[in-house]
Amino acid sequence: MSKIGIIMGSTSDLPVMQEAIDILASFGIETEVDIVSAHRTPDKLFDYGKNAHHRDIKVIIAGAGGAAHLPGMIASLSPLPVIGVPVKSSNSIDGWDSVLSILQMPGGVPVATVALNGAKNAGILAAQILGSANSEILEKIVAYKESLKQKVLEGAKEIKK
Amino acid sequence: MSKIGIIMGSTSDLPVMQEAIDILASFGIETEVDIVSAHRTPDKLFDYGKNAHHRDIKVIIAGAGGAAHLPGMIASLSPLPVIGVPVKSSNSIDGWDSVLSILQMPGGVPVATVALNGAKNAGILAAQILGSANSEILEKIVAYKESLKQKVLEGAKEIKK
Amino acid sequence: MSKIGIIMGSTSDLPVMQEAIDILASFGIETEVDIVSAHRTPDKLFDYGKNAHHRDIKVIIAGAGGAAHLPGMIASLSPLPVIGVPVKSSNSIDGWDSVLSILQMPGGVPVATVALNGAKNAGILAAQILGSANSEILEKIVAYKESLKQKVLEGAKEIKK
Amino acid sequence: MSKIGIIMGSTSDLPVMQEAIDILASFGIETEVDIVSAHRTPDKLFDYGKNAHHRDIKVIIAGAGGAAHLPGMIASLSPLPVIGVPVKSSNSIDGWDSVLSILQMPGGVPVATVALNGAKNAGILAAQILGSANSEILEKIVAYKESLKQKVLEGAKEIKK
Amino acid sequence: MSKIGIIMGSTSDLPVMQEAIDILASFGIETEVDIVSAHRTPDKLFDYGKNAHHRDIKVIIAGAGGAAHLPGMIASLSPLPVIGVPVKSSNSIDGWDSVLSILQMPGGVPVATVALNGAKNAGILAAQILGSANSEILEKIVAYKESLKQKVLEGAKEIKK
Amino acid sequence: MSKIGIIMGSTSDLPVMQEAIDILASFGIETEVDIVSAHRTPDKLFDYGKNAHHRDIKVIIAGAGGAAHLPGMIASLSPLPVIGVPVKSSNSIDGWDSVLSILQMPGGVPVATVALNGAKNAGILAAQILGSANSEILEKIVAYKESLKQKVLEGAKEIKK
Amino acid sequence: MSKIGIIMGSTSDLPVMQEAIDILASFGIETEVDIVSAHRTPDKLFDYGKNAHHRDIKVIIAGAGGAAHLPGMIASLSPLPVIGVPVKSSNSIDGWDSVLSILQMPGGVPVATVALNGAKNAGILAAQILGSANSEILEKIVAYKESLKQKVLEGAKEIKK
Amino acid sequence: MSKIGIIMGSTSDLPVMQEAIDILASFGIETEVDIVSAHRTPDKLFDYGKNAHHRDIKVIIAGAGGAAHLPGMIASLSPLPVIGVPVKSSNSIDGWDSVLSILQMPGGVPVATVALNGAKNAGILAAQILGSANSEILEKIVAYKESLKQKVLEGAKEIKK
Repeated sequence: MSKIGIIMGSTSDLPVMQEAIDILASFGIETEVDIVSAHRTPDKLFDYGKNAHHRDIKVIIAGAGGAAHLPGMIASLSPLPVIGVPVKSSNSIDGWDSVLSILQMPGGVPVATVALNGAKNAGILAAQILGSANSEILEKIVAYKESLKQKVLEGAKEIKK
Repeated sequence: MSKIGIIMGSTSDLPVMQEAIDILASFGIETEVDIVSAHRTPDKLFDYGKNAHHRDIKVIIAGAGGAAHLPGMIASLSPLPVIGVPVKSSNSIDGWDSVLSILQMPGGVPVATVALNGAKNAGILAAQILGSANSEILEKIVAYKESLKQKVLEGAKEIKK
Repeated sequence: MSKIGIIMGSTSDLPVMQEAIDILASFGIETEVDIVSAHRTPDKLFDYGKNAHHRDIKVIIAGAGGAAHLPGMIASLSPLPVIGVPVKSSNSIDGWDSVLSILQMPGGVPVATVALNGAKNAGILAAQILGSANSEILEKIVAYKESLKQKVLEGAKEIKK
Repeated sequence: MSKIGIIMGSTSDLPVMQEAIDILASFGIETEVDIVSAHRTPDKLFDYGKNAHHRDIKVIIAGAGGAAHLPGMIASLSPLPVIGVPVKSSNSIDGWDSVLSILQMPGGVPVATVALNGAKNAGILAAQILGSANSEILEKIVAYKESLKQKVLEGAKEIKK
Repeated sequence: MSKIGIIMGSTSDLPVMQEAIDILASFGIETEVDIVSAHRTPDKLFDYGKNAHHRDIKVIIAGAGGAAHLPGMIASLSPLPVIGVPVKSSNSIDGWDSVLSILQMPGGVPVATVALNGAKNAGILAAQILGSANSEILEKIVAYKESLKQKVLEGAKEIKK
Repeated sequence: MSKIGIIMGSTSDLPVMQEAIDILASFGIETEVDIVSAHRTPDKLFDYGKNAHHRDIKVIIAGAGGAAHLPGMIASLSPLPVIGVPVKSSNSIDGWDSVLSILQMPGGVPVATVALNGAKNAGILAAQILGSANSEILEKIVAYKESLKQKVLEGAKEIKK
Repeated sequence: MSKIGIIMGSTSDLPVMQEAIDILASFGIETEVDIVSAHRTPDKLFDYGKNAHHRDIKVIIAGAGGAAHLPGMIASLSPLPVIGVPVKSSNSIDGWDSVLSILQMPGGVPVATVALNGAKNAGILAAQILGSANSEILEKIVAYKESLKQKVLEGAKEIKK
Repeated sequence: MSKIGIIMGSTSDLPVMQEAIDILASFGIETEVDIVSAHRTPDKLFDYGKNAHHRDIKVIIAGAGGAAHLPGMIASLSPLPVIGVPVKSSNSIDGWDSVLSILQMPGGVPVATVALNGAKNAGILAAQILGSANSEILEKIVAYKESLKQKVLEGAKEIKK
């Protein structure tokens, strides 16, 4: 069965990345979670990047902070779409380092970058990518958007009282 | 047949966005190009966002500069994956305005953001999204990556002389 | 009777936006407060933007954080003057994202931007806009400015002791 | 007759500020143009700020570069709505200095800030402020927005060929 | 007797500005402290700037936050050297607004800018300016620098244990 | 006779620093110009900083680009007031490096920082420092400010035609 | 025996710099720790910079915050490799000041800059420099990298449960 | 014989990186130049990083622009000291992307970062690293510093005429 690979550079990224896992679970999409450090486990990085598409992984979500090389290196190694989540780690310069390290990829090797700490959106985007070729998932996205709308409308009612 | 929708806020964005059109053409993927301005043609924006997935569009690439609202508004309206291209327009503050206006989407509504003026990468990413469910396109991505490698290796040979 | 429309992207923006409501109340100017999310309730956004000037709304104040598209989209849809309040939300990159997303509008579609979290000033500016054609309100602005002055002068007295 | 006061800190700002003059002329709105330097003609600044609303000026547009104090000081002195245009002057640090000097006004004294070099939008905003209480001008804004739309639609037609 | 004028935009700036008062007191230099708001008490600003040099004030230290216009406007009005202290106020964008509003003065009207919240250095600089023409104060500066050195050398001893 | 020491890190800074020399010449104030590189001539730096106040130098103006250490090191070594001019050199990161390297001095060792490339203002500030204790020079500053005003008023006349 | 000189501008930098001391101790490399302030003890700075290579110091690690001149001045005075650690001090502008003051050295005088508060990496880099000519230390680096890898792999196991 | 490995991500980086080659040649130090792209030739990257220290390479200089992952990935793979040169490429956001991608490495994996486009300094730093254990090269550094000094002193003479 199709699944989403979710990797991060360190266990300290898990609180941020958990939101990707949770939202995909809510869509009924399977995930495979792992720690892969570009700087500390380069062999695992290579192995992961070269082989993910040979198992049933269809999209890779990679989160990292600081000089965040994990998303870009995975994009270098894998033909799959890679979604990068800039994580605002301690000692980060306000998050600018991870944002720019992930976003500003050279021509030829894209990373689909989401907002700082935006793991939830990474999960939704992964679902949309599956949904692009799967009308059942597409329907779930439509329903999810409807639920977002309802929550805002309820908030609006509340505020009018 | 599946195709990629490519829209931009102004004809002045075309020189940047042309790279997305060209790279997708080189992959043999059909594109539909249009001008849709979030700020000057809001009705067209709504119509486009609500209906793109009802024709054969599978991924939308949206480029815009300055306070770039086109990618995010399309992401608001469509269940499809939306790729945002920050365009460095004249009077932009070094491109920061379009980068942040596209990247920093709130939870629930992702935009897959690529580098400043990174339309080529937007095209490749769109192909990867199609390739995620289409092994023929995936093979083209693999071949494209191989061609990038060969060009670098040739450059390396040249420099060694 | 003339009134000011105050909208915001999320109930979490209310603590910041309350200052606009309060200062306008202190001027005796009526406000109509609502939640309108550009990204989660685009239909409501369209309806609001297209119709506000057909009820007695004379100025619209719109507050939003992150990739803040609400003020600019309202400015796209309405002929009324729109005041944008950049809100410093959690996960914002120090507020730069909302400031630039609201300020850097393209030629043709202005948003009157105030300081980060500057909802109080948005309220005063709305009053000044009404006051521009209404000498009674203009007098209230003059009196308000006098009160600001008195408070500073009292602070100065205090510090001299 | 109602008019818009347009001031700038130096004759070198005129090429940027001319766009405000021109767009207001196209709406048939009278303007009064002057050079007022906060730093070199403080007496004129005071006189201008204190008296503009006693002649028929309804809105003041003030443009300045670098440590741009003109818009904020005029806002300090006048009860009228003040629109600030950050001008990207030579030796500016990429325009950030004028943007922040104009935008980040303290509570109590708003400046309606537009984009860097956004004098055209300042003019449109001034017209919208007049239009808020004048249905004839409001109609012109509606027509102007329609003309923007038409231009985009023509561009879209062009690109489709 | 010669004295230093110390002004600030708001009583909330006093905790930062107190360091200038204290260091000057430690040098035995008289100070005159006042609250002068460029935006809320423009008449007092004018009076202060035009007349400070007619009493025994020799240097003016002006502290302000956000769109900080006080130092630059005093420099516009007074022939005295003006030292500007950027204050990091709440809602400041990390202090960049006050730094750039004070530092980036146009040609002809300098403000001697010190570090963010650097009121102590403003006091020392004012003393150095007096000391430039007064050998007794110059000697105090020399002694002060010697005391800084001794404190570092003691710290170095401590760390070596 | 009193004079102003003007130093810079490299001959390539001369075109910027010349404005300080020229404006001081126009006030009839003597200058002594030299090249002193903190990074390439540290012995000369030490000698200069320790001895400038023993000749007739009353104020030191130091200009440098990039990681600009010259103004701060001179301030470390000399009891005189030091004015720092951030120079926008090639390979500078938009001037931010020289601005922050000069401005953000630690408590105890101030540098009076002027705008990026603001050598003219450094010269005027140096004159103001002398003028603080010399009424003849103070009068020249008053006259200079009057000339600035006249030039603006003439520009204003011109623009009204 | 070869050793690493570790200096910092103030005792308040010690909590950050301790990480360099500790990691070098773990490699069995001797360190000599001292406080040297570029701005408060310039004579000690000169003495240190000119003589470090005449004792057994082979690499100098220098940490400082704000307008951080210590690493660059040591690099000016010593022929040894100098590693600079930008320290995020209080009143720093988010660390940008120390980063740019250390990184952007002019041609001819390099400082090997590490990440904000990256003292641990400075220690590792110093060990690598010794290891470049000492195979025993090189082996320790190889072993250290292996230990980093093991820690990540254990974290990955943990997360899979 | 010992040599310095110089690699870069693209032949377009050669004009910047040539300065490292030239300065090392002037010191009589052998270099080995190659193109290695982290994103386009990941296998070559791995091979290079894992084996450089098994030939006579003692220090690696790696230059790259944008989301620059080459220096950090080499530092991940090699135990040698790695010097990173941020290159200001076209479409870079003013160089901030390459600076932060190289500088902000996580704890455990340092990159010795030099200034934007600072390849010359990278070469000097590499020589200093060799010189740390080789007194002949250390003497060349001392002589080089002397030559820098002489050039400044000549410039100073010139300016005094």
